[in-house]
Amino acid sequence: MSVPYTIGTPGYVPASQKIPPIALPLVSPRAKVFLDKIERFVEEECVPADEVYEQALGRDVQSRFSSHPQIIEDLKKRAKELGLWNLFLPKNHYQGTGADFTNLEYGLMAEYLGRSHIASEACNCAAPDTGNMEVFAKYGTEEQKRRWLEPLLAGEIRSAFCMTEPHIASSDATNIELAIRREGNDYILNGEKWWSSGAGDLRCTVYLVLGKTDPQNANKYKQQTLVAVPSNTPGVTVKRMMQVLGYDDAPRGHGHIVFNNVRVPVSNVILGEGRGFEVIQGRLGPGRIHHAMRCVGVAERALEWFIARLVDPRKKTFGKRLVDHGVLLERVAQSRIDIDAARLAVLNAAVKVDMGDTKSALKEIAEVKVQVPAVLLDTLHRAMQAYGAAGMSQDTPLARMYGRNRTKKIVDGPDEVHMQQLGKTECRTRGDQMLEKITAQRRKTDELLKQYGMEKIDVLQLDRAYHHAAKL
Amino acid sequence: MSVPYTIGTPGYVPASQKIPPIALPLVSPRAKVFLDKIERFVEEECVPADEVYEQALGRDVQSRFSSHPQIIEDLKKRAKELGLWNLFLPKNHYQGTGADFTNLEYGLMAEYLGRSHIASEACNCAAPDTGNMEVFAKYGTEEQKRRWLEPLLAGEIRSAFCMTEPHIASSDATNIELAIRREGNDYILNGEKWWSSGAGDLRCTVYLVLGKTDPQNANKYKQQTLVAVPSNTPGVTVKRMMQVLGYDDAPRGHGHIVFNNVRVPVSNVILGEGRGFEVIQGRLGPGRIHHAMRCVGVAERALEWFIARLVDPRKKTFGKRLVDHGVLLERVAQSRIDIDAARLAVLNAAVKVDMGDTKSALKEIAEVKVQVPAVLLDTLHRAMQAYGAAGMSQDTPLARMYGRNRTKKIVDGPDEVHMQQLGKTECRTRGDQMLEKITAQRRKTDELLKQYGMEKIDVLQLDRAYHHAAKL
Amino acid sequence: MSVPYTIGTPGYVPASQKIPPIALPLVSPRAKVFLDKIERFVEEECVPADEVYEQALGRDVQSRFSSHPQIIEDLKKRAKELGLWNLFLPKNHYQGTGADFTNLEYGLMAEYLGRSHIASEACNCAAPDTGNMEVFAKYGTEEQKRRWLEPLLAGEIRSAFCMTEPHIASSDATNIELAIRREGNDYILNGEKWWSSGAGDLRCTVYLVLGKTDPQNANKYKQQTLVAVPSNTPGVTVKRMMQVLGYDDAPRGHGHIVFNNVRVPVSNVILGEGRGFEVIQGRLGPGRIHHAMRCVGVAERALEWFIARLVDPRKKTFGKRLVDHGVLLERVAQSRIDIDAARLAVLNAAVKVDMGDTKSALKEIAEVKVQVPAVLLDTLHRAMQAYGAAGMSQDTPLARMYGRNRTKKIVDGPDEVHMQQLGKTECRTRGDQMLEKITAQRRKTDELLKQYGMEKIDVLQLDRAYHHAAKL
Amino acid sequence: MSVPYTIGTPGYVPASQKIPPIALPLVSPRAKVFLDKIERFVEEECVPADEVYEQALGRDVQSRFSSHPQIIEDLKKRAKELGLWNLFLPKNHYQGTGADFTNLEYGLMAEYLGRSHIASEACNCAAPDTGNMEVFAKYGTEEQKRRWLEPLLAGEIRSAFCMTEPHIASSDATNIELAIRREGNDYILNGEKWWSSGAGDLRCTVYLVLGKTDPQNANKYKQQTLVAVPSNTPGVTVKRMMQVLGYDDAPRGHGHIVFNNVRVPVSNVILGEGRGFEVIQGRLGPGRIHHAMRCVGVAERALEWFIARLVDPRKKTFGKRLVDHGVLLERVAQSRIDIDAARLAVLNAAVKVDMGDTKSALKEIAEVKVQVPAVLLDTLHRAMQAYGAAGMSQDTPLARMYGRNRTKKIVDGPDEVHMQQLGKTECRTRGDQMLEKITAQRRKTDELLKQYGMEKIDVLQLDRAYHHAAKL
Repeated sequence: MSVPYTIGTPGYVPASQKIPPIALPLVSPRAKVFLDKIERFVEEECVPADEVYEQALGRDVQSRFSSHPQIIEDLKKRAKELGLWNLFLPKNHYQGTGADFTNLEYGLMAEYLGRSHIASEACNCAAPDTGNMEVFAKYGTEEQKRRWLEPLLAGEIRSAFCMTEPHIASSDATNIELAIRREGNDYILNGEKWWSSGAGDLRCTVYLVLGKTDPQNANKYKQQTLVAVPSNTPGVTVKRMMQVLGYDDAPRGHGHIVFNNVRVPVSNVILGEGRGFEVIQGRLGPGRIHHAMRCVGVAERALEWFIARLVDPRKKTFGKRLVDHGVLLERVAQSRIDIDAARLAVLNAAVKVDMGDTKSALKEIAEVKVQVPAVLLDTLHRAMQAYGAAGMSQDTPLARMYGRNRTKKIVDGPDEVHMQQLGKTECRTRGDQMLEKITAQRRKTDELLKQYGMEKIDVLQLDRAYHHAAKL
Repeated sequence: MSVPYTIGTPGYVPASQKIPPIALPLVSPRAKVFLDKIERFVEEECVPADEVYEQALGRDVQSRFSSHPQIIEDLKKRAKELGLWNLFLPKNHYQGTGADFTNLEYGLMAEYLGRSHIASEACNCAAPDTGNMEVFAKYGTEEQKRRWLEPLLAGEIRSAFCMTEPHIASSDATNIELAIRREGNDYILNGEKWWSSGAGDLRCTVYLVLGKTDPQNANKYKQQTLVAVPSNTPGVTVKRMMQVLGYDDAPRGHGHIVFNNVRVPVSNVILGEGRGFEVIQGRLGPGRIHHAMRCVGVAERALEWFIARLVDPRKKTFGKRLVDHGVLLERVAQSRIDIDAARLAVLNAAVKVDMGDTKSALKEIAEVKVQVPAVLLDTLHRAMQAYGAAGMSQDTPLARMYGRNRTKKIVDGPDEVHMQQLGKTECRTRGDQMLEKITAQRRKTDELLKQYGMEKIDVLQLDRAYHHAAKL
Repeated sequence: MSVPYTIGTPGYVPASQKIPPIALPLVSPRAKVFLDKIERFVEEECVPADEVYEQALGRDVQSRFSSHPQIIEDLKKRAKELGLWNLFLPKNHYQGTGADFTNLEYGLMAEYLGRSHIASEACNCAAPDTGNMEVFAKYGTEEQKRRWLEPLLAGEIRSAFCMTEPHIASSDATNIELAIRREGNDYILNGEKWWSSGAGDLRCTVYLVLGKTDPQNANKYKQQTLVAVPSNTPGVTVKRMMQVLGYDDAPRGHGHIVFNNVRVPVSNVILGEGRGFEVIQGRLGPGRIHHAMRCVGVAERALEWFIARLVDPRKKTFGKRLVDHGVLLERVAQSRIDIDAARLAVLNAAVKVDMGDTKSALKEIAEVKVQVPAVLLDTLHRAMQAYGAAGMSQDTPLARMYGRNRTKKIVDGPDEVHMQQLGKTECRTRGDQMLEKITAQRRKTDELLKQYGMEKIDVLQLDRAYHHAAKL
Repeated sequence: MSVPYTIGTPGYVPASQKIPPIALPLVSPRAKVFLDKIERFVEEECVPADEVYEQALGRDVQSRFSSHPQIIEDLKKRAKELGLWNLFLPKNHYQGTGADFTNLEYGLMAEYLGRSHIASEACNCAAPDTGNMEVFAKYGTEEQKRRWLEPLLAGEIRSAFCMTEPHIASSDATNIELAIRREGNDYILNGEKWWSSGAGDLRCTVYLVLGKTDPQNANKYKQQTLVAVPSNTPGVTVKRMMQVLGYDDAPRGHGHIVFNNVRVPVSNVILGEGRGFEVIQGRLGPGRIHHAMRCVGVAERALEWFIARLVDPRKKTFGKRLVDHGVLLERVAQSRIDIDAARLAVLNAAVKVDMGDTKSALKEIAEVKVQVPAVLLDTLHRAMQAYGAAGMSQDTPLARMYGRNRTKKIVDGPDEVHMQQLGKTECRTRGDQMLEKITAQRRKTDELLKQYGMEKIDVLQLDRAYHHAAKL
């Protein structure tokens, strides 16, 4: 049975017709076709499967991290049939495999993928695999590509990226301490990582681990090295899984991993010793845009749940449907405004990345990194509040969406760090220039006053002679 | 002497290179040339003239509304020389006079015009004349065009639009009460209007007045008629000028006008008796986009003043420049994020208008109507706070910018009305559809659970048999 | 070993010395002694036990709701020894058992109880038992008191209050549908309740259930009846436990309970048939104040964790401790301001209740119902953000505090309902009076103007004669 | 004619019955009598006179600062008759003149004074005279008292306090630069001051001027000296009056004063050379509380105007009175909550001052310095918005209230400075203690786990053995 109110149903406006007008000239007809296919796949097949997937994991903690529900494999098969596979890949990717969409185009698609918990994985477009595949394709050796990139591209294995550490303030990445010591043709790793997302997954067979090979290097951006570590290497222990507001995000989860004399061959290095920072910076760009667009999709879905509640005839209070309470309408409107603006900001950042290198788009990327999660969490709060206690429970997807996204204000660097950076950049690049412009404009005003025969008077300047006359 | 740090100065990024990437494909090379010319004209000639204009008005209230500073005429002459005249006009305007820019293109220009108090007038692009010219061009008779449109296009006269009334809640326009009674070939007007912007100007020679010719008409949108009233018609009295937070906005101001048996010929009607609503709705569209983009320009200028203060070496507190206080940097960043998103929202609305009729863009226009002034006022508050008491005084342009724009949350309808409308539209057009989609998705989930041989269990469902065993 | 930095440790300011000065005259010396004892008990014994209690519940869902950790019984014993038992009880309680503190005094204590997850239960001061005990004492028959009040007072059994229902909008309590049908000397209950807090607890042996005995009664406040239902009555099934943001709040939890032909004797009715509304309104008063003060305690503890992180020397970013980042200091200050004001608001409401009946304090109680959770959640967000991802995980108590308190914006009625009521009351009780006062003051102004020989002129009134002279 | 709806009118609740319950035990019966007298005087005589006073100033700028409306003298006479004179004075004031109210009691009265623009002056309780009188009484010589304190106490002259300077960042008071050079028995002053409130008043005959006598002193708090300067001393020029958002606050205003070789006898020094900082710190305490309570009064009056508009039957939109629009009711409720909490915070600070010296109340005073203006400005925004454009104009008192109070976020130090200080104090005084407490509690948890025979397990800890079995 097909889910009504998706493409083909009377009255339903398909995704391709909801593209913001300003973006339209940059979206190819082929991308529009894919966009509509994705919307339909997500709304009709993935969203309904979300709860099935969750149910299949069961209630027992141990089982939740040892499960691999069949439905995700069936969805992957279906996505491949539909051609909705590896859509994030740029044109010139490994062996010409790229789906060849621009970041703008894939961004539009990512919004729909974001609406379902499992759609991204179904289309092999889930983080952190996407970024890791880009790393392997861009910097990997032939051997690394064969061993990890190919099965990743095929959706057979998964991967994790291990960067954050428990004992330091990781929002400053130069603080990381995991030691990578060379011994002959091997590296020996010692240290701990946490918030390694995806590390709980049975199929997660490779970790990209950032550590320090040269902690004394005067250049603190040359101390780090990235190495690929098979997850079954002796000495690797997933000590525990981190919770986020009570959620475990099983079966992938966020691992706290101990590396105890973990030995890998030197050939597992990515790009080269001391070049870890270079790799992680090359990895960051488009991923954040995809992240942000998925968040826009979550927000849009939250708003849909919000308005569905307001018109629900069974939910009347004080004789009125919720839609007749002005306070809630104002919140719908605020979310509508916020989400529409956030989407445009992300798409604009995507276009900037498409136009050149990611570096020139750093400002735009940082802006949406902060803006989008704020919009999303606000919208979720409003929607949850409309549902009452049900909105915080397992009976709507809202609470889980909140749990999954509250961390967005932290991951890839806390908002606060990005804000300071944005503020500093703005002041550093333009502050003096603006001070000089304003000064020059004031000078010009003085010239004009002279030219027009006016003295600069203050609007309220007073003759205070009376003071001298006043008697005390 | 030229003002440094505008186009041509090393390091200065001209306006055409600051267009958001996503908008670029829709901006013609010709528009870019004009954009840079406008930026230069505004920054180098208009902004420095703002204060000169204000000084020329003097301190005496009576004189402030009887002055016409020479500098504005000089700037108009200069704008004409530069070809920066009537830029807002669409292609097919009266006698082929249109500047032929799209709303997107002119929107980009309006941002720069907004930076100066007088630039819009200098380029004959100031409200309400722009909207009034559109009305005359679209709906005027040949006689009306000759008498009012031509001198308006030439910048020789000015006009006002009289709609809001003091004794009713004008945010609901059907409440208006000014009576227009027909007597032979004349209309007789009786009533009061206020907030008639521009009515204080010596050159304001024509008012477009909305009143009721048929207050008993069952269709409450057919009761109104719009007539042109020469401002020197006997019976017209500008009773007083309204203040906004202590500002008089001289010499144009906001008039409170009494119409006492004011007689005009029936030929002064616009479009036709009973068609007033039709005219005012046709008038609203692009004007709000121009308004919004000018506000973006004000916000951008406020941010420039903000960062200029932060880097000012003379303004140190506790041994540090303000730029070294993180709190202020975060506020710069927030404004940067907000303004960039707001600009994109306005430009997107402009493209929607460019793509079709204004009506289809009503949602987008309402969104920016609310979003942009909020962003602007927030940015002004942040900037004012950085300047201390000076920020609220006559020593910076910030306080006046605040005074001029606080009303933006009211004019063209209070934010609250637009928010209710936006919320209602969202719920009305999509609410039921979303409720059905969610219901269908849940049904599909149930089918899938059956298909995968699972019962729907609740994650925490419990066997409460123990209760029956428990002893009380 | 004693936990340092509580009472007796050099430099520690005990609770009795942190009472807001304005409240001091109303706090007895005896209450101060108890306050300090509670602070010490909570900080030194209960807070450290929180995690032990959680660990004892284990990881398996089934076991989590079948566990009764020994440590809570040990703490109860200890609380009894210290005399910290049933502190919430008013003087004239059942058989003279009351602790005899005012609501102000107990409110101050409740702030400290709120800091630990289990302290309230340890002192037999936990909701909903407190409110239920008040119901039994106030409205119960001797038989009911003997059967339920006495073991509740002794901490031997626990209770639940069943009001909210899944299929209606429960924020309007007149919507409830659970049917109570009389059959001879029995009532037969049919319906569902959810969010019955505490229903998961093994020791929860009695439910107070609100249902409709007379759904057709013209007076919609006379349709309801409250009956006591032993939890092991046949036909009672705890269908499932509700989650809040991923937390189950085991072992007490929030039950979704099905009542299927549940039969109880008519003697189980509370107060009388048709008087259910009367009972629930009599139950609400002081409980909300205790709730609010516990929330103040949670907020204060969140702030303590916040500042502890800021000074932590191991958590440096960009070479500075977090305390040296101004943005975070501003947030500490904002929380300090908010919490201090919230505490005063709750204490003032408590005094109002102490001065008369609860009814006269409805405004004050509604105010803190909305104000305090907002302050708490804001403070938690700020603290969580300072801890990075750890702040949302199981490694700090912050995320669980968030999960437990997010619902405070819903329970006892959504904020939105209280806000509407507050706004309406303000307008209804004073609106017309204020309109008349303002009108009278304006009339008096007119009299004074006449008396001082002034005409009422508008500051900017203009002579517009020039208009008539102007040439068109 | 008496203004209805004040004391004595049926249904009106007088001020003494609106005192927050928690404050009641500290308010004497005598203070309640005065409180009701003040409420009546303010509501019935001062508020209606506000507009008369403004009208008497006229429209001409020069005249506005040379006027002294008779009505203020009449009100002063009336206040003296009613015994409402110098109420702010503490008991042991100059020659036993003190009104002998506590800060709490006078604070309650100040709330009512704040409702009228001129009530404080009418009762000789206006800033900066109140603070200046305290300075003269506390630190003045007999000669200074006779010359300035006595006429100030009698309301015959007025005074200004000159501290802020235009060329520095005055929020750091050690930055001030005005030079005070000794020459024989005279001091010679050179420099500029601005924002000298009250300096425009014809009767302002003495300035207290802070300058540097010893700019090289290693102790930067010993460099300053405060001297009394008669305003008609040669060399003193009020260069101009500062505007605040378009308002001039005539006739008192905020002066920008130039001191050019101004010579005063050494006997004009206050307290002693190099003791300027000591004096200004002794001056700050209670004044801020009075300020804050007046702001609470302004907020309360704004809320009264707000609700009066909502019930106004002439102001219907879309067929409903504004009171029937839920969005506005929610805003009323928010203001009600905010104002009530703010009042309690100020009163609590007042009690703290009453209990000891001002120094111990610095935290509480700083808190209300930030909290109260924020509440006031929010309330004003909400009220203005309900009035539409009229709310920003001269037709309601709201806009002027906004103009007068926007600076409250700056005067006596910008909010930002106070927030940093509050945050720092919180972290410095308690940060390490809290870190140690949390650490100790965690240690205690470990002990308890051992004691109860539990290992510390993580809720989600996993056996990852499968990793080693997994095939790559």
